[in-house]
Amino acid sequence: MAANNTITFYDLTMAHGATTSPFVWATKYALKHKGFDIDVVPGGFTGILERTGGKTERLPAIVDDGKWVLDSWGIVEYLDATYPDRPMLIPHESVAALTKALDAWWWPTAVGPWMRCFCADYRDLCFEHDKDYVTTSREKMLGMKLEDMQAGREERLPQISAAIEPLRMALREHQWLGGSSPNYADYRILGPILFLASVGKVPSLAEDDPLRDWIERCRDLFGGLGRHPGLINLYGLKVPEGGPEPYMRESWRGGIYKRNTGPASTRAETEHITKKD
Amino acid sequence: MAANNTITFYDLTMAHGATTSPFVWATKYALKHKGFDIDVVPGGFTGILERTGGKTERLPAIVDDGKWVLDSWGIVEYLDATYPDRPMLIPHESVAALTKALDAWWWPTAVGPWMRCFCADYRDLCFEHDKDYVTTSREKMLGMKLEDMQAGREERLPQISAAIEPLRMALREHQWLGGSSPNYADYRILGPILFLASVGKVPSLAEDDPLRDWIERCRDLFGGLGRHPGLINLYGLKVPEGGPEPYMRESWRGGIYKRNTGPASTRAETEHITKKD
Repeated sequence: MAANNTITFYDLTMAHGATTSPFVWATKYALKHKGFDIDVVPGGFTGILERTGGKTERLPAIVDDGKWVLDSWGIVEYLDATYPDRPMLIPHESVAALTKALDAWWWPTAVGPWMRCFCADYRDLCFEHDKDYVTTSREKMLGMKLEDMQAGREERLPQISAAIEPLRMALREHQWLGGSSPNYADYRILGPILFLASVGKVPSLAEDDPLRDWIERCRDLFGGLGRHPGLINLYGLKVPEGGPEPYMRESWRGGIYKRNTGPASTRAETEHITKKD
Repeated sequence: MAANNTITFYDLTMAHGATTSPFVWATKYALKHKGFDIDVVPGGFTGILERTGGKTERLPAIVDDGKWVLDSWGIVEYLDATYPDRPMLIPHESVAALTKALDAWWWPTAVGPWMRCFCADYRDLCFEHDKDYVTTSREKMLGMKLEDMQAGREERLPQISAAIEPLRMALREHQWLGGSSPNYADYRILGPILFLASVGKVPSLAEDDPLRDWIERCRDLFGGLGRHPGLINLYGLKVPEGGPEPYMRESWRGGIYKRNTGPASTRAETEHITKKD
């Protein structure tokens, strides 16, 4: 299969040519992780059914030597099952279960809120022929005008940034969500961040966000797969007067790490909590 | 090492004799997962330094043939490194990274809020000789009287239950967080739920919570390790008039699963979002 090591990949982009959909981004990384060259079929939001010869209304979709495979998760399962001799996207079934839990946190906490912060930018940056579809479909999904939904994002963006601290805690202890090398967990969480870089006219993350290192290393992978010239700067989030810190700056360290190394390591806390006023 | 396949385990319990600390629970499961018998040194919150001969102020702690190992994460690393021929607690380094991300979500979302809902029950249920320490230390940590912190929990418990939906989504697709068999990710997330069963005088989860199946299967592991007779019923959460659903009952399915199987699977959504009013 995969003649000439190449798989056909149906892309979904803005007018600037960079991929938009978080799912399509994750799939592009997944194909490269498996070592394939990709034959990109470009396009926007309208005409997917026609472009794919009636095979699907949604992307991602790939064609491997004539075999159509749909759905971001369907493609991951197909690639690992069909090519188990290549680097695994999901190296252990526990990685699948935990990625699903993390993704189920990530969407309501960050991805959905970010989409609501950039829904009008998104419409403005898509192809001319997509604007009517994007406006209608997103206003139906959101239940209001895109401009009204996007309004007030200056207040919301720092809150979203503060809420994604669990990623910072994990990536403080590990180089990748995959451990010492990236896997589909990284690509799945990265997808929505590259969506932001595709559609966000204002930055979503602080200049010195600790996640920046991981994000930029992800963008460098596979010959700079995440460095399309159409992408917009992610960093430089402005926090309004009185707004929350966009990430935890305190020296206090939460999360899992080896903290109790004996009485000397806990003495200060013990003294604090047992002192009677 | 581990003469007679036995490791010494310093427990931390309420007066009813069941383990309390989430970390100590997770460690007890970890030792059993590795196939060890455990020689339990019982005890409460005060006198840990004396009980352990000055080795530690905090539990869990284990002694393996004279070698002291401290800290819940330190013990996991020790067990997998020392006994790699036994079932792995962390079968892939990505499981470590993802468990850390999930745990960093779990604590501020559920464990901390649950602890604030049960802090006075917790004091009431501990050993008599622990009550002064527990009251002082927890009031220091919380910055208020235990009774005041616990007040109003009827309103908060359904919100906490609703917020843990990411676990339900992952466990809808997989039998365990470990995949087809449990690993440390399961035990780490389970620990705080067994803490609830140890200290909560009112139920935290709905009678028909979808998590119940996984929780009860976890409790059955290793000869019913999570079935100490001192433990309190977890199910039967009462939601006050107008309170949130304690879990998502709608037929809408979020999360990662193979959803696009072709145009028939997306047609209803497409018609909805493209219909002009």
